[in-house]
Amino acid sequence: MDSVRLGVIGLGGRGSGLAELVASMDDVVVPAVCDVYQDRVDDNIARLKDRHGYPVMGYLNYKEMLQRGSLDGVIISTSWTTHVRIALAAMRAGIYPGVEVGGASSLQECWELVRVSEETGVPFMMLENCCYGREEMAVLNMVKLGMFGELVHCQCGYEHDLRSEITRGMENRHYRLENFTYRNGELYPTHGVGPIAKMLNINKGNRFISLVSMTTKSRGLHCYATEKLGPDHSQRNTVFGQGDVTTTMIKCARGETVLLTHDCSLPRPYSRAQRVQGTKGIWMEDKNAVHFDDFDGERWADMGEYVKKYEHPVWYDFIIDGVRGGHGGMDYLVQRAFIEAIKTGTQTPIDVYDSVTWMAITTLSEDSIACGSAPVPFPDFTNGKWISRRPVPDGYWTLDGIYKGRNPEPVSEKKG
Amino acid sequence: MDSVRLGVIGLGGRGSGLAELVASMDDVVVPAVCDVYQDRVDDNIARLKDRHGYPVMGYLNYKEMLQRGSLDGVIISTSWTTHVRIALAAMRAGIYPGVEVGGASSLQECWELVRVSEETGVPFMMLENCCYGREEMAVLNMVKLGMFGELVHCQCGYEHDLRSEITRGMENRHYRLENFTYRNGELYPTHGVGPIAKMLNINKGNRFISLVSMTTKSRGLHCYATEKLGPDHSQRNTVFGQGDVTTTMIKCARGETVLLTHDCSLPRPYSRAQRVQGTKGIWMEDKNAVHFDDFDGERWADMGEYVKKYEHPVWYDFIIDGVRGGHGGMDYLVQRAFIEAIKTGTQTPIDVYDSVTWMAITTLSEDSIACGSAPVPFPDFTNGKWISRRPVPDGYWTLDGIYKGRNPEPVSEKKG
Repeated sequence: MDSVRLGVIGLGGRGSGLAELVASMDDVVVPAVCDVYQDRVDDNIARLKDRHGYPVMGYLNYKEMLQRGSLDGVIISTSWTTHVRIALAAMRAGIYPGVEVGGASSLQECWELVRVSEETGVPFMMLENCCYGREEMAVLNMVKLGMFGELVHCQCGYEHDLRSEITRGMENRHYRLENFTYRNGELYPTHGVGPIAKMLNINKGNRFISLVSMTTKSRGLHCYATEKLGPDHSQRNTVFGQGDVTTTMIKCARGETVLLTHDCSLPRPYSRAQRVQGTKGIWMEDKNAVHFDDFDGERWADMGEYVKKYEHPVWYDFIIDGVRGGHGGMDYLVQRAFIEAIKTGTQTPIDVYDSVTWMAITTLSEDSIACGSAPVPFPDFTNGKWISRRPVPDGYWTLDGIYKGRNPEPVSEKKG
Repeated sequence: MDSVRLGVIGLGGRGSGLAELVASMDDVVVPAVCDVYQDRVDDNIARLKDRHGYPVMGYLNYKEMLQRGSLDGVIISTSWTTHVRIALAAMRAGIYPGVEVGGASSLQECWELVRVSEETGVPFMMLENCCYGREEMAVLNMVKLGMFGELVHCQCGYEHDLRSEITRGMENRHYRLENFTYRNGELYPTHGVGPIAKMLNINKGNRFISLVSMTTKSRGLHCYATEKLGPDHSQRNTVFGQGDVTTTMIKCARGETVLLTHDCSLPRPYSRAQRVQGTKGIWMEDKNAVHFDDFDGERWADMGEYVKKYEHPVWYDFIIDGVRGGHGGMDYLVQRAFIEAIKTGTQTPIDVYDSVTWMAITTLSEDSIACGSAPVPFPDFTNGKWISRRPVPDGYWTLDGIYKGRNPEPVSEKKG
């Protein structure tokens, strides 16, 4: 396949940006876009036509687009709770779904994704851009090289002050406000857990076996609305269900633990709070540093040099070719990984088992919190296949590979 | 009381050091020391006599010392699991017990400490030195001043690579090896949770209501013993019960959560991993930085300047008088707080309710882990008194006070 026909469903800020990103690639055409709002559809058609010169069909109904669009894949960047039903319809139409990040509302919808992907043979990919972050990929490489020894404990999170974004409500026709009003749990697990799950070989010789969540009271959004937004703001009397900080502990079959933090409604600088710890070393994102057992003394070493030294080949080439796309280049890389799988008709590097395992954390954490931080069993979405499945080290885009001595020396960045 | 007669029970490295520290104070006499090992008793008697010129009685049996020593207080620095029985005997003899840090083995022994302290009227104090850490006290002051707004979430831990110490076994007649071999839980909660509990007003308008713990596999000590200590080392075949990283979540009555990490058997630099987070700001020890809501942008500010600006008066004076004693001065301050309470016949600033609440985390975390990370209820050791008890803002040594504008300008350090 020389050229991939990608549709985009959900044309808010994220979807519009991704439509433009993929349409700018030589081997991608975006012949169809879809949203429930006509103005978004019109704007995207006009922009794509203007920049790329070909006609783009607009749809208000995704089912119609999936039937009539002659598409190879769709990017689904709609509201969190509608990702799954659209992805199921895409797979049933033989179209690769790439869904934006978000958690699941029930285990049942996770199982449906697994069953339909297995039955149709169509891969399902969560477009978890952080898996393709430069630092995350360098650490993955260091893990694969054994530099941390046997992994024992990992941490990660989504620590992002979204008070302004959330309280804006439906002004930007987003959906965060509703989720933070009605739900209470680890609403956004995948930025943190995606890269960590790859390092821990989850679903390939390891799996998540149980989970416990605990959440704080909800104070941040109320204080923000009443103290910063004025006495007449629409959120001044909203009773928010979502606790400000949700902490989740996950146990793995091979004895490791993973700690997740969701922290989006208090003042703080951004962090994904990653930590990877094994018998020979530790990396802490918040310190931007590593420590290894063979260090002389208790010192932390700056992570920057290690990233350059153990650069993942995907990033090595990306820097030479010119980093481009949103979120520091991660958006571009994850879309390329999705597109390469479509072009070659192969499995996506983040497959349906990976995707639903990460998404399930949301509904499991809601369950655990609802039951007073009870431990909840983590389903084995592979039905036992994880015991014999293994990381496949070959393949440029795969997040399984070991790249030893790939990089003779660090490269210098070039503008994209 | 002009002079305090302090006995010391348990004369390992810690006890010997503390005996010397308190004996060097003008208003303290150490007339009696006790240990089960005769050589330790002899060494301490000789050293104290040599340096301070007065006779010191030695005992192999603590009960005998408590009966015959005419003591006002005792420092109990024996093995973790013997603290409680000795403290109970001290209170029954009308002697203030100050116990070194460590966790409880059962809830029952915590209740016994409460009952005996209440019945005898003798205060019980855990000598948690980290409560008197310079940074901790400055943060406490900032919390009391409302700089973090309403507190929502805190983190803390004991992250200390003790592999060499633990695997040394009984060479130094310590007890860590046995605990790490047979137990599995949050073995050392108080360095982290002590200062945090004071900030959260635990047992004074707030309390811990439930706890969940999860632990990793145990790999660090085995790898260390087999890879670093040689093929014939006594620990090469030891099966360690203690997981390398134990994570504990505690829920408070007022809706806050506290996250604890116990991480002592993997390579890493030392940290107590403290984080204090509220509706207006956040402090992270691992970043040595704070962020406040009124900052322009997402920046972290260096903590050093804030410590100086919001110096607790105890530290303000300590710096002027000259910082002395172990662990950066914390040891000296916590002993002074204990001694001042004895001299004035008043309640200790860390009382029996504080102490057992912190100690209970160990046995509760062992229970939770043993039951697959089940949530366990946290006893109300005050039997309802926490509802009406409140921090008492006056008193120099108390950890309750609000000291606004106490410090006209930062002082410069003087050698002690």
